Amino acid sequence: MLVECVPNFSEGRNLARIAALESAIATVRGVRVLHRSSDCDHHRSVITFAGPAKAVLDAALRATGMAAELIDLNQHHGVHPRLGALDVLPFVPLGNTTLADCVKLAHTAGERIWHELHIPIYFYQAAALRPDRELLEKVRQGEFEGLRESVLTDATKQPDIGGPALHPTAGAVIVGARPILIAYNINLATNDLAVAKKIAKAIRTSSGGLPCVKALGLALESRGQVQVSMNLTDFNVTPPHVVFAEVSRLAAEAGIDVAESELIGLMPRKAVEMAFADSLKLPDFRSEHVIENCLPNEFG
Amino acid sequence: MLVECVPNFSEGRNLARIAALESAIATVRGVRVLHRSSDCDHHRSVITFAGPAKAVLDAALRATGMAAELIDLNQHHGVHPRLGALDVLPFVPLGNTTLADCVKLAHTAGERIWHELHIPIYFYQAAALRPDRELLEKVRQGEFEGLRESVLTDATKQPDIGGPALHPTAGAVIVGARPILIAYNINLATNDLAVAKKIAKAIRTSSGGLPCVKALGLALESRGQVQVSMNLTDFNVTPPHVVFAEVSRLAAEAGIDVAESELIGLMPRKAVEMAFADSLKLPDFRSEHVIENCLPNEFG
Repeated sequence: MLVECVPNFSEGRNLARIAALESAIATVRGVRVLHRSSDCDHHRSVITFAGPAKAVLDAALRATGMAAELIDLNQHHGVHPRLGALDVLPFVPLGNTTLADCVKLAHTAGERIWHELHIPIYFYQAAALRPDRELLEKVRQGEFEGLRESVLTDATKQPDIGGPALHPTAGAVIVGARPILIAYNINLATNDLAVAKKIAKAIRTSSGGLPCVKALGLALESRGQVQVSMNLTDFNVTPPHVVFAEVSRLAAEAGIDVAESELIGLMPRKAVEMAFADSLKLPDFRSEHVIENCLPNEFG
Repeated sequence: MLVECVPNFSEGRNLARIAALESAIATVRGVRVLHRSSDCDHHRSVITFAGPAKAVLDAALRATGMAAELIDLNQHHGVHPRLGALDVLPFVPLGNTTLADCVKLAHTAGERIWHELHIPIYFYQAAALRPDRELLEKVRQGEFEGLRESVLTDATKQPDIGGPALHPTAGAVIVGARPILIAYNINLATNDLAVAKKIAKAIRTSSGGLPCVKALGLALESRGQVQVSMNLTDFNVTPPHVVFAEVSRLAAEAGIDVAESELIGLMPRKAVEMAFADSLKLPDFRSEHVIENCLPNEFG
């Protein structure tokens, strides 16, 4: 049962700590780290790893423990919202694994994190135990500083496991199960944050934009640019190249160029091939037209 | 060492024989047939297969033997020029394999074909032993009927291995090594052949256009469109999406839309990923950002 796990850590600047977090995962037998990305403005790192369910679970526990040991949210300030040292812990089905398998795995991970590490747990998306916790951003509303107060007075804010108080330095872990997600950012050649916010609003599903798109406008101070930072929650519905075209169009209307775009973590091959077929007007293109896709694995 | 091999056979009409040729290849352990196309006017079939070098070599030998057994060039007449029953045998590097590896493989294949099957060999393109044999069309000049005479009297026409006489029914095999080639066509929403010819001329290398591009303007009478039909001889230099952009630009200058484009046969993954990275302005994109490219084989 092959599973991908994509923990988001509240540390994007200290390279030694980021290496220690990766190492906590990579040294678990059976898992493979596929990708790591860190952003100093976000002050956040995302590590993508995969393997059989049991090994992935063990690595997720070790990563949570290492994050709690290294990160103090009282000292952490970045442009990206966060609730925990290990902030978000999604399990994603690969191969023949189902989303239901990943829901079970998320629930087991949550139980173990509370019992072994005493960090309270919120479950989100497919693993949510309450409908009002399906959306990650709703669970995280108020962030560490707000929620550590409100959990004590507002019963509706209490964690799904553990608590009621948050962990004093590590906050809480938001554990979930979800289909594969593409984290994709487009940077604009301007430092005008209002433009990024306006475009983000125009394209996000929640304000009537493209389907299956979450978007925020953020400032990238270190680069003197602004960013439309996105999660594409179903790339079969809205793939990256469609988002790129729409953001480019809206930016052009505002007289602004797209500087570049960036992928955070990994994406499925199909999203690449969809872009190729569309941008070259290749209606008959299929995955089997790519030589390597036709070669059996033993050729690797 | 992963290698593609694309034998061209002088049989495009008898389906039982074509199936036997494919079967001679497909039954060799380790190789996989990726694509097959036959043309009755050309009276010719092209089978694309791939695998580790040793298995590909064995399959190439078996294909040559089967072609010699089934095809008598004295009885063969098609519109496409040919010199052998198995007429052309190119080896193409895949993955980390180099063109130099394929040159060696071509030379080994030539030696084995002569010693095991007694069919003489000419080497072409990167495997050519003489500069005047680099171009396939020059090697094949005179075809089976002409060359079987001239080899006996003209020393410059003699095979590189074996001979001097050609095989009485199977002729000779032209063995080569070449980089991967992408056959790519762009159809224009017009029936004005002059436009396709003008664009083909503007983009082809030989008249000062894009590097590593061969291009012809053709009429597609059944569709009422015209086509810029291309071979991209080094997609690392000029990939399909660059050609598409240039043809689109030239067509727009003439007030004409690109209707669609089409791929003939297969293309390498890298060409797809280059288009993705360029069209989405993703300077940091690498093959390892695609999940399926990172999963170890044992995860299959």
